[in-house]
Amino acid sequence: MTDPAAAPAAAPARAVALSEHFGDRLIERIRAAGHPLCIGLDPHLALIPEPFRRGSMSPRSPETVAAVETLASAFLDRVAGRAAVLKPQIAFFEVMGGPGLDLLARLIARARAEGFVVILDAKRGDMGSTAAAYAQAYLGPEAVIPVDAMTVNPYLGTEPLSPFIEAALAGGGGLFVLAKTSNPGSAEFQDRELEGRPLYEAVSEALTPSAEKLRGPLTGWSSLGLVVGANMPEQSVRIRERLPQAPFLVPGYGFQGGSARNALAGFVPGPGGRLEGGFVSSSRSLLFPEGGSGSATRWERAVDEALDHAIADLTEASERS
Amino acid sequence: MTDPAAAPAAAPARAVALSEHFGDRLIERIRAAGHPLCIGLDPHLALIPEPFRRGSMSPRSPETVAAVETLASAFLDRVAGRAAVLKPQIAFFEVMGGPGLDLLARLIARARAEGFVVILDAKRGDMGSTAAAYAQAYLGPEAVIPVDAMTVNPYLGTEPLSPFIEAALAGGGGLFVLAKTSNPGSAEFQDRELEGRPLYEAVSEALTPSAEKLRGPLTGWSSLGLVVGANMPEQSVRIRERLPQAPFLVPGYGFQGGSARNALAGFVPGPGGRLEGGFVSSSRSLLFPEGGSGSATRWERAVDEALDHAIADLTEASERS
Repeated sequence: MTDPAAAPAAAPARAVALSEHFGDRLIERIRAAGHPLCIGLDPHLALIPEPFRRGSMSPRSPETVAAVETLASAFLDRVAGRAAVLKPQIAFFEVMGGPGLDLLARLIARARAEGFVVILDAKRGDMGSTAAAYAQAYLGPEAVIPVDAMTVNPYLGTEPLSPFIEAALAGGGGLFVLAKTSNPGSAEFQDRELEGRPLYEAVSEALTPSAEKLRGPLTGWSSLGLVVGANMPEQSVRIRERLPQAPFLVPGYGFQGGSARNALAGFVPGPGGRLEGGFVSSSRSLLFPEGGSGSATRWERAVDEALDHAIADLTEASERS
Repeated sequence: MTDPAAAPAAAPARAVALSEHFGDRLIERIRAAGHPLCIGLDPHLALIPEPFRRGSMSPRSPETVAAVETLASAFLDRVAGRAAVLKPQIAFFEVMGGPGLDLLARLIARARAEGFVVILDAKRGDMGSTAAAYAQAYLGPEAVIPVDAMTVNPYLGTEPLSPFIEAALAGGGGLFVLAKTSNPGSAEFQDRELEGRPLYEAVSEALTPSAEKLRGPLTGWSSLGLVVGANMPEQSVRIRERLPQAPFLVPGYGFQGGSARNALAGFVPGPGGRLEGGFVSSSRSLLFPEGGSGSATRWERAVDEALDHAIADLTEASERS
């Protein structure tokens, strides 16, 4: 006979506290924000506007890293508190090597301190101990760049995703598996028939058991999500029918037919009737908005306007259901 | 009328000099080495042998980076001049963040100075400007970690591979596209029928025009290669029939049925009748050989023995045709 009162107060009943479940945290933060906009952070060196450029902008120059840090910090100042989710694209930091990854770590720590749920867009995909190293780098207890979730690639199968799933179970992180990407050539393999259904659908269905296992106790949404392009409304609906619990990371909003309505095609009515089921990412049009070159003040105003526009557009579309 | 003698002497007739073509350089170096062994560099932190370990081996500790540098440098000392190709796995450096990437850059520069053709195993796959950033990071003229070639993932289609192909055309680098990977779960999608043939075959066939365009003028081998597991001899033969010009990066040698004979299943007779057509990678069994713990001297001897064994095994198999 054990006395419950004698149990150590700090002993966790499960590895992840309720509030630490990624799927729950994600959806609750999006509900609190009132809209599903995700702010992309893709500091493409060639697009950095004039007032922020320094020297030749060679990716190997410390001046370039400093220029990106100034721009990204000014950007975080403007967007802080206006959305629930931030998605940095690691390639634009990796291009600057070690100093680029160090900068990414600083920016992510700052964004998380400001309350953002941070999704690292890395699209990693490998096997065994290599996959485990990627999971350890970003989702593990000793992660060098801790994030809330990361994107992964399913070409090697679902079994190699297990280190990411285990990290999510153990540490409260999440993962988004590429299903139907937004690039024009994504149909080449993803839409082709794989034994009776499109490849993207086979990938999605294969993830159902893991998505179920990772459902949040509060909202029912899973810590395993899928990447589904904003310009793929039919595919979004088909995937949603198969995975009602998986949040969608929706890239490509504002491009190639990625209207707000299309971006939300796979969303479902949530509390208050507002559509929910993931988030819609906008990158280039926020960090490099039209009319944002010439001066820092013009850039700030253009960022604010682009942000206002995207939030209003997605809010309207998510309430129109 | 122009006088040819008046043309500037340094004006290149084409972007890539003959000797700079990746496919040619790769195959010529392998022919000179006399065997197709590729030395993997996968410094898995948990496996680093006792004499090299420092402190807790936390991936965030500078001591850990120093320990990996000591081990990897000692390893390069032992393997220098004994094989044509070295393949570092970036995940094991990325897990240490910025300092890890800086270390990777130092080790790769050293390996290339020692004459290795260096293939970065990164399995990157993204679209548009993001793919371009990855190509720029490792294959471009201002690459922060310049390598000879890198591995890429085809799930997004062949169109997003164009920045890697363009970088190969412009700068003399190469790329290896995942076709049939060596992990046990690779059959899940790769072997399934995609409109009449397995997905891995559809991916391979879709790459034929690019592989043709990237053929080397000296050897006929392409700068576009494929990743085909050592334990997949039947698939290797089928891919070889479709892409006679593509070098194979063959992982999984020594594991799961990846015998030397199976690893070379997709190779073809080259000069002197010796089988050629790519390289066979061995990672863990060389860096972490059996009997290699206890002392640095024992580790050195075990590395030498493992290397001797792998070279002899692959040499015999490649001459037995």
